[in-house]
Amino acid sequence: MSTPTSTASRTPAYEALCQRHQRLHRLNHLQSIASWDQSAFMPAKGAEARAQALAEMGGLLHQQATDPALRDLLSAAEQEPLDEVQRASLREMHRVWRAANALPQSLVEAKSLANSHCEHAWRSQRGANDWAGYVENLRPVVRLAREEARLLAEDSGLSRYDALLDQYEPGMRAAEVDRVFGELRQWLPDLIRQVMARQADEQMLHPQGTFPAAAQRALGLDAMKLLGFDFEAGRLDESAHPFCGGVPEDVRMTTRYRDDSFLQSLTGTIHETGHGRYEQNLPREWLGLPIANARSMGLHESQSLSFEMQLAAHPGFAKLLEPLVTRHLGHQRAFSADNLNKMMTRVAPGYIRVDADEVTYPAHVILRYEIERPLIEGQIEVEDIPALWDAKMRELLDLDTRGNYKDGPMQDVHWGAGLFGYFPCYTLGAMYAAQWFATMRRERPTLDDDIARGDLAPVFDWLQARIWSQGSRWETPELVQRASGESLNPAHFRRHLESRYLG
Amino acid sequence: MSTPTSTASRTPAYEALCQRHQRLHRLNHLQSIASWDQSAFMPAKGAEARAQALAEMGGLLHQQATDPALRDLLSAAEQEPLDEVQRASLREMHRVWRAANALPQSLVEAKSLANSHCEHAWRSQRGANDWAGYVENLRPVVRLAREEARLLAEDSGLSRYDALLDQYEPGMRAAEVDRVFGELRQWLPDLIRQVMARQADEQMLHPQGTFPAAAQRALGLDAMKLLGFDFEAGRLDESAHPFCGGVPEDVRMTTRYRDDSFLQSLTGTIHETGHGRYEQNLPREWLGLPIANARSMGLHESQSLSFEMQLAAHPGFAKLLEPLVTRHLGHQRAFSADNLNKMMTRVAPGYIRVDADEVTYPAHVILRYEIERPLIEGQIEVEDIPALWDAKMRELLDLDTRGNYKDGPMQDVHWGAGLFGYFPCYTLGAMYAAQWFATMRRERPTLDDDIARGDLAPVFDWLQARIWSQGSRWETPELVQRASGESLNPAHFRRHLESRYLG
Repeated sequence: MSTPTSTASRTPAYEALCQRHQRLHRLNHLQSIASWDQSAFMPAKGAEARAQALAEMGGLLHQQATDPALRDLLSAAEQEPLDEVQRASLREMHRVWRAANALPQSLVEAKSLANSHCEHAWRSQRGANDWAGYVENLRPVVRLAREEARLLAEDSGLSRYDALLDQYEPGMRAAEVDRVFGELRQWLPDLIRQVMARQADEQMLHPQGTFPAAAQRALGLDAMKLLGFDFEAGRLDESAHPFCGGVPEDVRMTTRYRDDSFLQSLTGTIHETGHGRYEQNLPREWLGLPIANARSMGLHESQSLSFEMQLAAHPGFAKLLEPLVTRHLGHQRAFSADNLNKMMTRVAPGYIRVDADEVTYPAHVILRYEIERPLIEGQIEVEDIPALWDAKMRELLDLDTRGNYKDGPMQDVHWGAGLFGYFPCYTLGAMYAAQWFATMRRERPTLDDDIARGDLAPVFDWLQARIWSQGSRWETPELVQRASGESLNPAHFRRHLESRYLG
Repeated sequence: MSTPTSTASRTPAYEALCQRHQRLHRLNHLQSIASWDQSAFMPAKGAEARAQALAEMGGLLHQQATDPALRDLLSAAEQEPLDEVQRASLREMHRVWRAANALPQSLVEAKSLANSHCEHAWRSQRGANDWAGYVENLRPVVRLAREEARLLAEDSGLSRYDALLDQYEPGMRAAEVDRVFGELRQWLPDLIRQVMARQADEQMLHPQGTFPAAAQRALGLDAMKLLGFDFEAGRLDESAHPFCGGVPEDVRMTTRYRDDSFLQSLTGTIHETGHGRYEQNLPREWLGLPIANARSMGLHESQSLSFEMQLAAHPGFAKLLEPLVTRHLGHQRAFSADNLNKMMTRVAPGYIRVDADEVTYPAHVILRYEIERPLIEGQIEVEDIPALWDAKMRELLDLDTRGNYKDGPMQDVHWGAGLFGYFPCYTLGAMYAAQWFATMRRERPTLDDDIARGDLAPVFDWLQARIWSQGSRWETPELVQRASGESLNPAHFRRHLESRYLG
């Protein structure tokens, strides 16, 4: 495979573009680390200065990404004798350029400030169930997101929501989401009912006692080791909302601990480890160029869910977890592999998306999608969210959420951080993950036994070869086709759930 | 006091300068946090990318600080009707501008890269006593520091070493250091001998057992609370070499823990808390302008040493420490106030500067000064350091350091990080601190009783009013005069040592 940064003198415009992107990559590094610190370590009174610093830097990066000279370089590079990889690299440079140029710097800076303020205040407002306070900060975030959608739509010719969605899942459209989610909506409620009826008589032991954060942390670190995370190129810390940040060379994962339960932090840590390994294994020979980036957020979620759902909730994987759990939390009958697997596959409607089992999870995502889309399109306002939220939680999961903003629209920070169009990626990711494992099983029929024996290399090797090492080499449909031999096919997800929960 | 950022329309050039400095302040914020992380949290494989990111940003900051438009703005501002504070603010802007313009961007970037490499490798080389490996990285650092000294000297008309010294202690010259250190060198060895003879018969109990890092950390946090550190505007973490970094709005202190001794981390933490409170209490109304910066490194050390030596080693302060130490480390006879004070005032020549008592500490600084000055002036090379080090350690402290690079020239990272001209500031700081406390006692004869009663407000109020809140409002000699009624007078330091150790 040729390198997209070869210094061939016949491609001076392309080389100049590479240098500019590598420069942006280096500056983005500081932005990423400061953002991680903002969520993981920063004390309260640092918030204002940090928000200003990130906004200033955001503006500066935007300024560099919109330098008028880039337009000429991009045009000139099109005429140069580039090889196939360099062409793909140039395509991704175009994508980045187009996204940056659709937005004026003033909007980028205003967004960064509004998002920082909203996210920081959310940290204390959530605990206080302070919806009224949160709405005050959310309103300007939504106003700016609508403005962003309008400008991106004008530039791309897409609809407003599609324009936002395209930032996270290039090529994906609301019409396709409607089709896929519409199908899901048809069989999901019934599947949830069937699984719950079947599990009603199942004996599951509940772990007893409290679980100190230090022991949970040690357990999480061991699980990350089992999953191949490179601790010389990353860390695990704590934050209010778990995430995977940092840079490919230094991945910063976070989790959160609850004394009364270890499962959330364990599965959360395994989830973020999937993101982390994708980042750690992106193609190094292209590092600093857009082609070396993760393909999309849906693809990213397909990695975290490959780890959390396909692997961790696999009955064979529970055999690998049992010795780790007992090592760090002591011996209990509830820690048997069989019971751990029951805990990890227990289906029960709940308020919190990140704590949801894989069967009810898509209901949370459908709800977010059905609220954020009209919110961006101006059909509803932030004040309308709680009533809509409640209606949809009743309809999809039969839960009453009135007055409980903390575990309702304030449970996570995506909207407060201006991330509209992101939520669908979670369920697209679950579908991709099911498709990857269906492909692995077809190609390697011993896969389930391998996992139970603790031989995870076949899984990692497959992901490394088909996903991680490809970066943004291919457009998503082609990547999916090359990886699995077909395009996105939600039937794999349904088959996975039916086989695991009703099989 | 008028504000230097007043938006008077009669001072447009000055206002433009303020905006540019505030912008630099915001970008520097990211650089500071990433540097802190580099020392406190970054895993090994992140080093290369971080070094590149910091160098890129260093270059960018330098570019902005040397924008040719600044020269015209500075000239124009000189002609504007500025008030007295604004004049001082403009003077500091000139200082920053002059320092930045003396160096080409290529040198700034090369320095940042070489320093990052050397510092990062030092972390593992030190443990391995790998002088040969360290020298390979130190050589380019010294080469670049000499080049920097040459350029700064050309620009300022100072000698090369003076030009470096002036960066940390504006206005200070090697001739003055020679005078003050020369005087010290006359009475110090004899004082050390006298104190050691006197302490030879003193009964001091040695604490027994090991002290877990978590308990030491809790003790350190309590000491910081006692000393008024604002935890909503800063943190304490760990690093190989303790330092106080971050930004005034979010101070990042570090310490290091040894299982077999708690005193180093406790006194180290108290030391950094002095730096931290200076930063946390710099004038906020000028924030982002050079006039809001700490006056000098010597002044900074005068704060850390006011906390570590003047306060923590004070017999009255030991009464405040006793309950904290027993709370976190249990009860031992060695933890009595009287014995804690004996431990903190024990004088014994040792290898490690940061662990040195206040009587032998100046000997370490004299040694560094007498090596780094000829090193910068080209009279010696890095290969000559160990022999010189050993000769001077014998002469000043009667210690043999042959082959022990780890506890010799590799014990701290100043030189590896390119900080030449910094070391004298430590002992200048000790002298300033003694002068501050002599002034406090003159103005408030009950001071020592106040401290023993736990009433530290008189100390903090004095430092706040005379030092912290002044930022860089005055040149150092005027600040010293205003604070203490006289110029730097080393007699206070001698009197302090004689009274505490021979009184």
